[in-house]
Amino acid sequence: MPPADAPLTREQILVAAEDVLRRFGPAKATVVDVARALGVSHAAVYRHVANKAELRDLIIGRWLEGIMAPLRAIAARPGPAPQRLRQLFDALISVKRRRAADDPELLAAYRTLVGGAKSAVATHVDELVGLTAMVIRAGVEEGTFRKVDPVAAGRAVLSATSRFHHPAHAAEWADPAIDTAYNDVWQLMMDGLCAGQRSG
Amino acid sequence: MPPADAPLTREQILVAAEDVLRRFGPAKATVVDVARALGVSHAAVYRHVANKAELRDLIIGRWLEGIMAPLRAIAARPGPAPQRLRQLFDALISVKRRRAADDPELLAAYRTLVGGAKSAVATHVDELVGLTAMVIRAGVEEGTFRKVDPVAAGRAVLSATSRFHHPAHAAEWADPAIDTAYNDVWQLMMDGLCAGQRSG
Repeated sequence: MPPADAPLTREQILVAAEDVLRRFGPAKATVVDVARALGVSHAAVYRHVANKAELRDLIIGRWLEGIMAPLRAIAARPGPAPQRLRQLFDALISVKRRRAADDPELLAAYRTLVGGAKSAVATHVDELVGLTAMVIRAGVEEGTFRKVDPVAAGRAVLSATSRFHHPAHAAEWADPAIDTAYNDVWQLMMDGLCAGQRSG
Repeated sequence: MPPADAPLTREQILVAAEDVLRRFGPAKATVVDVARALGVSHAAVYRHVANKAELRDLIIGRWLEGIMAPLRAIAARPGPAPQRLRQLFDALISVKRRRAADDPELLAAYRTLVGGAKSAVATHVDELVGLTAMVIRAGVEEGTFRKVDPVAAGRAVLSATSRFHHPAHAAEWADPAIDTAYNDVWQLMMDGLCAGQRSG
């Protein structure tokens, strides 16, 4: 709860909203419930958040932002593009799996909210495609990847790995065969992307 | 309802169970509710189905069997493997989309049941991998595909197209961009699989 005399910040609202979401589920992620959790008036929260839809978009946006920061660092790193591309997707898959394993209630609550937060999710997907395209473009320029359209190929790599990072598949991630499937998909994509002689 | 003097068949039980599932949801897919819908005793149903878990496995198995029949025909057809592989996945995607669009309540009920019907789903996935591997093997033999491991490549193609046929993604199938994403994934995989000179 914030000190009574300090002004309420948007970050405090979002931290409280995440806690409400974890403890009481997505139905309770409303301005009224978050104001109650913070011990402030509805009006104080409404000064920062116009309505329930905006609150939910902000909650989802904050959750996705936590995923993106390490991925941006990998995409901006120097080094051969094929390795960086794999590191990017290993990191994406690992953060999704960790969240599914550590806090399944919160992940389930987020999945319910996501249905009503199209703009935050679209922004997230666009940025993921952008980071993937950035690494593929570097690979085309350095000659490790063929002359593909980086954005189309980036979209393809993201879609083709959905089973390994999309929360809709979280129940499959405990299957010991999931890593073999990921390696099979990766090998097939690299056979398609990589320049130079084929081994087959 | 079957004639009172005719013996009850397993098929009648499964047709009634599907109807119960569609109308009342997955919680009602029990031996007691199916017996009530058929106007027969519980014992008459128990003669065919040992318990609720077996009933659910049979319901899921029947639903998946309806998906597999046309796919088996495509895999067994003559013709160049790359085209047949595309037809196989076009057919898989189209039957899943049609079911999601025509009968969303039934699809949702099936998705809930699937969580408890691991063996029926595993059989379905194994057969899909098998059909895909059969077509890829033919392509390797005719020289249109590179010398890949057909089973690993089949598993990769099935995993990489999950977004387009796995019911967990049904909400995305109305997105007009979904076909572009499917074509992007397909192109990347064919670049990896196809023998001969690359265009890039």
